[in-house]
Amino acid sequence: MRISKLSLLVAAVLLVSCGGTKQVGVLTKPTSATTNLEGHEYPKINPDLSATFRNDFPDAKTVTVNVGGKNYPLVKGEDGLWEVTTDPLVVGFHYYTMNVDGKRISDPNSKEFYGSNFWQSGIDVPEAGVDYYLEKKVPHGEIEIVKYHSDLTNAERTTWVYLPPQYKKEQDRRFPVLYLFHGAGEDETGWGTQGKLGNIMDNLIAKKEAEPMIIVMEHAVATDPNATGRQNMFDFTFFEKVMVEEIVPYFDAHYRTLTDRDNRAICGLSLGGFQSYTIGLDHPEMFGWIGGFSGSGRGPNDRRDAEMYPKSINDQYHVLYISIGTDEPSGMYQGIHDLHVALEGLGINHIYYESPGTGHEWLTWRRSLYQFAPMLFKK
Amino acid sequence: MRISKLSLLVAAVLLVSCGGTKQVGVLTKPTSATTNLEGHEYPKINPDLSATFRNDFPDAKTVTVNVGGKNYPLVKGEDGLWEVTTDPLVVGFHYYTMNVDGKRISDPNSKEFYGSNFWQSGIDVPEAGVDYYLEKKVPHGEIEIVKYHSDLTNAERTTWVYLPPQYKKEQDRRFPVLYLFHGAGEDETGWGTQGKLGNIMDNLIAKKEAEPMIIVMEHAVATDPNATGRQNMFDFTFFEKVMVEEIVPYFDAHYRTLTDRDNRAICGLSLGGFQSYTIGLDHPEMFGWIGGFSGSGRGPNDRRDAEMYPKSINDQYHVLYISIGTDEPSGMYQGIHDLHVALEGLGINHIYYESPGTGHEWLTWRRSLYQFAPMLFKK
Repeated sequence: MRISKLSLLVAAVLLVSCGGTKQVGVLTKPTSATTNLEGHEYPKINPDLSATFRNDFPDAKTVTVNVGGKNYPLVKGEDGLWEVTTDPLVVGFHYYTMNVDGKRISDPNSKEFYGSNFWQSGIDVPEAGVDYYLEKKVPHGEIEIVKYHSDLTNAERTTWVYLPPQYKKEQDRRFPVLYLFHGAGEDETGWGTQGKLGNIMDNLIAKKEAEPMIIVMEHAVATDPNATGRQNMFDFTFFEKVMVEEIVPYFDAHYRTLTDRDNRAICGLSLGGFQSYTIGLDHPEMFGWIGGFSGSGRGPNDRRDAEMYPKSINDQYHVLYISIGTDEPSGMYQGIHDLHVALEGLGINHIYYESPGTGHEWLTWRRSLYQFAPMLFKK
Repeated sequence: MRISKLSLLVAAVLLVSCGGTKQVGVLTKPTSATTNLEGHEYPKINPDLSATFRNDFPDAKTVTVNVGGKNYPLVKGEDGLWEVTTDPLVVGFHYYTMNVDGKRISDPNSKEFYGSNFWQSGIDVPEAGVDYYLEKKVPHGEIEIVKYHSDLTNAERTTWVYLPPQYKKEQDRRFPVLYLFHGAGEDETGWGTQGKLGNIMDNLIAKKEAEPMIIVMEHAVATDPNATGRQNMFDFTFFEKVMVEEIVPYFDAHYRTLTDRDNRAICGLSLGGFQSYTIGLDHPEMFGWIGGFSGSGRGPNDRRDAEMYPKSINDQYHVLYISIGTDEPSGMYQGIHDLHVALEGLGINHIYYESPGTGHEWLTWRRSLYQFAPMLFKK
């Protein structure tokens, strides 16, 4: 492993240094959220990062908005509109819902985002000094929606693939590949939509902070047509087979990839982190770099002993990366933190990052990608 | 114009002939809708094409589902679940909503789709003998999500682009381009999602019924940063400038396009049809083929006189295509039908198609694309 363990301090400095000189993300007046439907004024985010919701529900008796883990009742004003201003919100992207007379609904003012197995409203609270995930006037890569046949599942697979700006310009160049998984209750669209992966990578590559790379945002679910009964969501055996025998070979055959392990990484968030550790550590011949954001272990039993994490890992992988938000549910935080401690005890080199003040949410994962991607494929 | 007017009969035959020998789309038992969230059993579509909705709203007092233009009250059963079976539904894709105690919500069992300026549930009712828009094991093109800077709007533009299966395989080949617009209240994702454009084109190209072509699914909105006041939605002057000066040049510079008018088409649905007629007829030097699905006219006043449709059009364009669903709102139907009659009176060659039994909905537009695409770029 060429990159030694980074301290939380170094990670935090890395994160803050991205802001540049212009104080982006600082609101000087109430501003419509970027996640609103086009032309919708509310919700607005205020300079103190509270949000003001304002809605027209003419016949409603009670209206609340559930955002940032808290319920806020809206009050009907003299103009007949319901309104509330929340406490200051944590920065980053939050799914949220409204509740009208006891029924959960999406906010009619917001775009909707797929997460936790359903479509929800979303609000993106800007972070002062941080613009690494914003759309900028830099060369843009493309995200391709790719469909191909899988013999093992006897179905078509749909995958989103990020191609760096160099991919089309340099027709003879081959690129390293990061396989990147979403979490449970999400799908292959999450990283490219609320994850802002396109902006993060475009910006990192424009500043030459990350190698131009292909990123395969796999659907990461595979159903064995011959299996019976309900599948354990932590049993990736069949998906691992599809990954190794079909998915990686497909992209090596159809894209200008570099096909050696030094140029292939595997990473994911939450359930996708478990998948990455499981598949990545099973296949050192395929993957040289492994990451798990808010979810990393090894297989169904999440074992952390010397048998599962032998010292040979130190020679096999360039980077093992693990991250967690400090405000994630305590069980999640403890699990990842304990893995980090266990790996230290076993003498397994790894990079451990705690995202300050964020939960099991997309800002933890945007920050983690923003850290992890620049480590990859360095010569 | 090389293709003379097709009769409704011929069009209907074309449409029916796509089924092949296998009776696809015929339901022999109640079947979960393909538009359901993964793993959700209801709504189910029954063999008579009625749909059964079944939902768990434990505290609700009244529940209705609004689908196919009609409200159906759900009844709470002894198992505590709310259920209703609708009348037989019109085939094709329908947006729908539920209403719980007076509040409009999406069906928690359904995927959501963006249309009419908000996210809604959707249900796709299969059509017996019709599989042209279904996912099949054929070579698949890719859909790219492309982002690039526009100087005129001083913003980044995001566009979805269909690339035919041949695009990557035949690296020296150049392809004709169809610019395809969505309707008002939709965005650049509509054609590739509920429009099923990828499947339609993959299947047509696999059967050699359509030329392999690039399809640019433009966002088709451009805001002039220097304009003041609210823009008339039927005034496309600024978007036309962006289209001619930036969008077409961008794709000609960055994709392997054929750049002459004989290899460039413009088409759209509803408001996008008006845009296509306006921009297409203004620029015979750029576009050789024009289509309008459920929306076609010419500019703000929708003029249909000899000055706006001179006979020279007959020599300038290979195809003018107009379509409308027979069950669209009467004003929409009458407007398009009257345009067809007016063009006949003016001696302007065109193809006119009425989609039997469908409304201002995606099946009208899937059928229209399925007809229009094979006409394009024939030598």
